[in-house]
Amino acid sequence: MTDWQEIEGGITAPKGFKAVGITAGLKPSKAPDLALIWSETEAIASGVFTTSQVRAACVDYCRQNLQKKASARAILCNAGQANAATGEQGWQDALTCAQVLGEKLNISPDSILLASTGVIGQRIKMDAMIGAIPQLVDQLSEDGGASAAQAIITTDLVTKSIALETTIDGRPVRIGGIAKGSGMIHPNMATMLSFVTCDAAVSTQLWQQMLKRAADKSFNQITVDGDTSTNDSLIALANGQSRTPAITTMDKNGQKLEAMLTAVCQHLAKAIARDGEGATCLIEVQVQGAIDDSSANKIAKTIVGSSLVKSAIFGRDPNWGRIAAAAGRAGVQFNQDDLMIKLGDFLLMERGQPLDFDRQAASNYLKQASQGAYLKEDTVLISVSVGSGSGSGIAWGCDLSYDYVKINAEYTT
Amino acid sequence: MTDWQEIEGGITAPKGFKAVGITAGLKPSKAPDLALIWSETEAIASGVFTTSQVRAACVDYCRQNLQKKASARAILCNAGQANAATGEQGWQDALTCAQVLGEKLNISPDSILLASTGVIGQRIKMDAMIGAIPQLVDQLSEDGGASAAQAIITTDLVTKSIALETTIDGRPVRIGGIAKGSGMIHPNMATMLSFVTCDAAVSTQLWQQMLKRAADKSFNQITVDGDTSTNDSLIALANGQSRTPAITTMDKNGQKLEAMLTAVCQHLAKAIARDGEGATCLIEVQVQGAIDDSSANKIAKTIVGSSLVKSAIFGRDPNWGRIAAAAGRAGVQFNQDDLMIKLGDFLLMERGQPLDFDRQAASNYLKQASQGAYLKEDTVLISVSVGSGSGSGIAWGCDLSYDYVKINAEYTT
Repeated sequence: MTDWQEIEGGITAPKGFKAVGITAGLKPSKAPDLALIWSETEAIASGVFTTSQVRAACVDYCRQNLQKKASARAILCNAGQANAATGEQGWQDALTCAQVLGEKLNISPDSILLASTGVIGQRIKMDAMIGAIPQLVDQLSEDGGASAAQAIITTDLVTKSIALETTIDGRPVRIGGIAKGSGMIHPNMATMLSFVTCDAAVSTQLWQQMLKRAADKSFNQITVDGDTSTNDSLIALANGQSRTPAITTMDKNGQKLEAMLTAVCQHLAKAIARDGEGATCLIEVQVQGAIDDSSANKIAKTIVGSSLVKSAIFGRDPNWGRIAAAAGRAGVQFNQDDLMIKLGDFLLMERGQPLDFDRQAASNYLKQASQGAYLKEDTVLISVSVGSGSGSGIAWGCDLSYDYVKINAEYTT
Repeated sequence: MTDWQEIEGGITAPKGFKAVGITAGLKPSKAPDLALIWSETEAIASGVFTTSQVRAACVDYCRQNLQKKASARAILCNAGQANAATGEQGWQDALTCAQVLGEKLNISPDSILLASTGVIGQRIKMDAMIGAIPQLVDQLSEDGGASAAQAIITTDLVTKSIALETTIDGRPVRIGGIAKGSGMIHPNMATMLSFVTCDAAVSTQLWQQMLKRAADKSFNQITVDGDTSTNDSLIALANGQSRTPAITTMDKNGQKLEAMLTAVCQHLAKAIARDGEGATCLIEVQVQGAIDDSSANKIAKTIVGSSLVKSAIFGRDPNWGRIAAAAGRAGVQFNQDDLMIKLGDFLLMERGQPLDFDRQAASNYLKQASQGAYLKEDTVLISVSVGSGSGSGIAWGCDLSYDYVKINAEYTT
């Protein structure tokens, strides 16, 4: 089901949303560092957050708020300080941010969600934050999606934004999304933030289920270096301003909406994997024939997360041995005599046995991918089958280059 | 309990064992590539093997044999070809090796265990193997431990051998061990092999339990790049030739034997971690205060396996943020306000809050470690506490250097 089209506008493409990104002076640089996303009406809100035991204040704040009431009017996101490992004072700062913004927007702080990205162990620069909030609100705009996308990035090489449109009962329905993340490369910079806006009318419970499933097929299936951050957050708002009939079950319309939500999340997740520091290509691993989807996803993620597979692809080496070894250690049962491995169109292994193949041509296939970095053509496709089961899964990652070690070895806190 | 002393002789230090390593012409180079370990009497045999779904023929062969009868007279190990992903023919080759060696030694093939290391997808060069077996047996020697240690290595920079001696009821009891492995760096080379000999008299069941626990505290707690191999094997023989009373329970003597067995395994495991390709130092992570030991081991292994921690240490960067983030994502519950992190003697974080510390002095501590590579002084110690629980654990790894990526990117199958 891909009966949607890409449109302009990112998170402000859906009806009834405004956004803005400004320079509040939180980052050492003069780059934009404060973003606001606003819905003209109370929107259904759902979130997926880091599972780390070491969490930022904003993550605990959002969890509490969404448990109280699964709706919101605004998302405030700062870059520069992660406000993680900042203890009770960091928690108070989060409350203050919501308080001050709520007064300026003339809404309850309960209707505000928070996100932070930046240096772990540093509190938000509260003077700059509070001083910037009036200007932030005044500059909210229906064309502000791009500036918000700019203001949430940290080490990202590119901004990440998308908007898709479909029709439900003849009327347009839109989902927009922005994200930041380039692998947890600068170790004290939070990894992954994503904000999604939607103008469909959908029930709270269904929206939460859709977002969880979409995250499992996208953000939860990417790996750059395996390190999960203290601030990871995915927040999705649906405000119903498309004036389409409310979606309350997984009927035709429900499936259409979830498919489009999943496509938005996958686009952003792939953009993050592609932006891994030092990466020259995107790696997509497709696994089939597993007993169930979660087993297939586990194998796919283990392969794409293998340092050996990642560095082989950086070296343009069609190395089936590393792929087979990674599949074998994924913690999923399969019969090694069923193992099939393809790299692009090259069949490297079948029924558990290595095959003769044109090594030079396969290496050229890998070379071409790197030359297309940041284009659709930059994707290296690894296809694996582990049996005759119906389970399938996909995972995305990037190759491991000298620059990864260089940046991480030479970065100093 | 460390009432033992290090002695010479490696695996031939215990009474009643002979060994040898020769050049059979299995490796492309002229380096030794075939080893035999022999006990003059049938020895109790126990093994721990790779959990990978992609396994070498020798692994399945040993598993079958040890299920039939938990005893053996000899271990035959070849380097050069892994005999993994070689299907039915590889299995037949394994049977033939045991058959031919059994005839020459005049023992049943059931009393022979097999191990292989080398290129995945390649069968053993059977002509060279069979041609070399007579010479191999003829050269068995009570001083052959060192030559066997030499013949089982592949990409290792150093051979790995140890022997310890204690007394049980006034009589000497010895355990010797050899290992190969330097991280799954050359991706198609099997990672980790270790063979242990012991002259104590111990019950089969107890010896199996001791070996499993020792492996969990040693080989299962090292990580170089997280990739597990198709051939990983740890095999331990106990032949009773010390003529000491049989150990059948975990009494004082049982505990003494297990402690020494664990020390042998930990020495070899640390030698493998230290030998990780491109490594400049050994990293030891000690975790305390967890709810149980397995939780502590999980956290320790997650920290030492983090690419970010490994590259920070290569960069001599005392980066508590990476350690905290890795601890947080280990999949173990703890309260982040209890988190304490020490690097050597430097306290970096306490009660979940970063502390001021002498960054230059801490960096110098890391610099010193690298200068001691391959010495005892090369160890970087990271101590973590996650609460007031009684669970503790240790894991070992090495830093991540440019050479790791270089070797893996430029290696071509």
